[in-house]
Amino acid sequence: MKWSGLKYLVVGAGLWGGVIAERIASVLGEPVVVLERRKHTGGNCHSFVDRRTGIECHAYGTHVFHTGIQRVWEYINRFAHFTSYRHKVLTEYRGRIYQMPISLPTINSFYGLNLRPYEVEDFILREAGGASPAAPCGQPANLEEKAVSLVGRPLYEAFIKGYTQKQWGRDPRDLPAEIINRLPVRANYNTDYFSDPWQGMPESGYAGLFEALLRHPKIQVELGVSWKDVADQVPASCRIFYSGPLDEFFDYALGALEWRGLRFENRLEPYRDVQGTAVLNQADGDVPFTRTHEYKHLHPERGAQGEQSILTREYPRAFSRGDEPYYPVNTPENERLMGLYRERLASGHPNMIAGGRLGGFRYMDMDKTIDFALSVFAGL
Amino acid sequence: MKWSGLKYLVVGAGLWGGVIAERIASVLGEPVVVLERRKHTGGNCHSFVDRRTGIECHAYGTHVFHTGIQRVWEYINRFAHFTSYRHKVLTEYRGRIYQMPISLPTINSFYGLNLRPYEVEDFILREAGGASPAAPCGQPANLEEKAVSLVGRPLYEAFIKGYTQKQWGRDPRDLPAEIINRLPVRANYNTDYFSDPWQGMPESGYAGLFEALLRHPKIQVELGVSWKDVADQVPASCRIFYSGPLDEFFDYALGALEWRGLRFENRLEPYRDVQGTAVLNQADGDVPFTRTHEYKHLHPERGAQGEQSILTREYPRAFSRGDEPYYPVNTPENERLMGLYRERLASGHPNMIAGGRLGGFRYMDMDKTIDFALSVFAGL
Repeated sequence: MKWSGLKYLVVGAGLWGGVIAERIASVLGEPVVVLERRKHTGGNCHSFVDRRTGIECHAYGTHVFHTGIQRVWEYINRFAHFTSYRHKVLTEYRGRIYQMPISLPTINSFYGLNLRPYEVEDFILREAGGASPAAPCGQPANLEEKAVSLVGRPLYEAFIKGYTQKQWGRDPRDLPAEIINRLPVRANYNTDYFSDPWQGMPESGYAGLFEALLRHPKIQVELGVSWKDVADQVPASCRIFYSGPLDEFFDYALGALEWRGLRFENRLEPYRDVQGTAVLNQADGDVPFTRTHEYKHLHPERGAQGEQSILTREYPRAFSRGDEPYYPVNTPENERLMGLYRERLASGHPNMIAGGRLGGFRYMDMDKTIDFALSVFAGL
Repeated sequence: MKWSGLKYLVVGAGLWGGVIAERIASVLGEPVVVLERRKHTGGNCHSFVDRRTGIECHAYGTHVFHTGIQRVWEYINRFAHFTSYRHKVLTEYRGRIYQMPISLPTINSFYGLNLRPYEVEDFILREAGGASPAAPCGQPANLEEKAVSLVGRPLYEAFIKGYTQKQWGRDPRDLPAEIINRLPVRANYNTDYFSDPWQGMPESGYAGLFEALLRHPKIQVELGVSWKDVADQVPASCRIFYSGPLDEFFDYALGALEWRGLRFENRLEPYRDVQGTAVLNQADGDVPFTRTHEYKHLHPERGAQGEQSILTREYPRAFSRGDEPYYPVNTPENERLMGLYRERLASGHPNMIAGGRLGGFRYMDMDKTIDFALSVFAGL
């Protein structure tokens, strides 16, 4: 790599870094180097084709594109053609399948009722003990109390308790009430998980999308290279867009940020279709995984994709240094620590902007990540 | 109207005639007159805004645009922006709501089972009495026998028998087996009624779509005028595109074509959401309507659309001359009669092309109607 005179460096070839690099190359016409310590671009959107079956698998869990932000939709459509896939989420509880989020068919099926849309609100209010969700009587002390005050105990016990406990590794009575503002309860038969007007999957996979995004001749992607490998060679005047975790950047000088980890377990199944949908949550608290991905369902336009299927179970787990960080744990303590790291970055590294999910310590959907990157570029 | 020198006349301002008129005006640059005996354009796609509620209602039942034909999608998008609405159909049987077409959740809910996708095929085969749908034992003598051979008696009795009887006004044992080739049974949780890649509703309604389609200055639309009003003034050299029924054109000289009629009953309901979905079929044979339309659900992007809703029940009925013809009854006798009318048209009216649903005596989805019109124009 030739560092002398380099004006723009991006650390991390995920969506945030990829979009910033593309804008710098295409709009400013300037060379830009993108470092990626993994052996592939795409960040956690990365997908690969399973050699045995030809099924496109998402390496870090199901990623479905959806947005209500017009400039993001127009931007990303320059690099991929999106299918008309619309994501659904089902959940299994005690061997039966229900629709998510909790909706009219979920309620009717769970309670054995035939409620009509206009009867749902009163029913949920009665279940929740008569307290209006808008003005609960007294402040709920934890997530469990909050959830019960919103949907009542039976729906909470079935669909929220076990899943939440597994997701965060804590009893919901030990989680802050503020984690949930509201629990969506749909009083209709809408089965779409997302309500965004633009939804779909990149027709040629996320690999195709990133190939197109980073194709510009002014962009140089270096795989298997991390920031620390090159930090002392980068010119002081170079602008750096950093999408790694800030605690790691500062060698954990002020302490470690807390993340939730995940483990994925892939299985080859001898059926053309095992679960009939792309993502099936597991609500039971005593089943250790939170969801099962059957990736072939993300691409119905590709047909049956063979007589076998890949099933991927997602197990949440405690995070230790060196693991892949997935979900930031946005407690007040972690937010305070992140604030300190941000200050240290601003004062000590004026040429560096941190962002993306890792660099921002924020869970972000893909569209928000792109929007964030476009805003960062617009502010240059 | 000035008829002298007119080269192109379209009879009927529905999709077929509208597209042909638009092509003649835009591509050939020729003036074209469009006659429409109703007081509105749009044919049976016509929608209007209910003054009490502001809800867009479809005057002739729910019309959802969907297509897999790229040239049709590209063509129609010049005249309307389509929303991302994806149509679902539910059905009510004995007070409970099921998904249509028959799918994994329909089966599990109806039988009280927890089948998985890979168990559905064997289950349906057993229900159907062991006969493979691909090679039934013996020829089914009527629609009932055919349907039972495909899905078994319980599903037939619940979801097909009553609905079919009401739709066609005949016992399914008196309907030909050929009406159904196959009954789709989905072994998954896909809730989309249509599998076409392009689906949606025109954002500004069908009124907006037709306004744009017929806006060209070379197109002159005459509402409230029928073919018979002007037939003797049209120059002999004028090319005529006729989308009315051919039996009526020939004054029923060879007999009347058979149609199925419909009656719509609109009700203003004091609820924001009555049925939670746009189209709810009624499978019970003793309920006289076949479906209920709640039009506001066709436009979720417009929000709740007020605290009231319009519900429209659709009652099939016998057709008498003067009624609106809806579904052509494509029996061999009717096909023979239609063939005779076609011959008479070809020999006696060489400048006339008949088409559309009425002129072609064919039930056609909107996209097929557009494709038909584009092909007619291409052949001029």
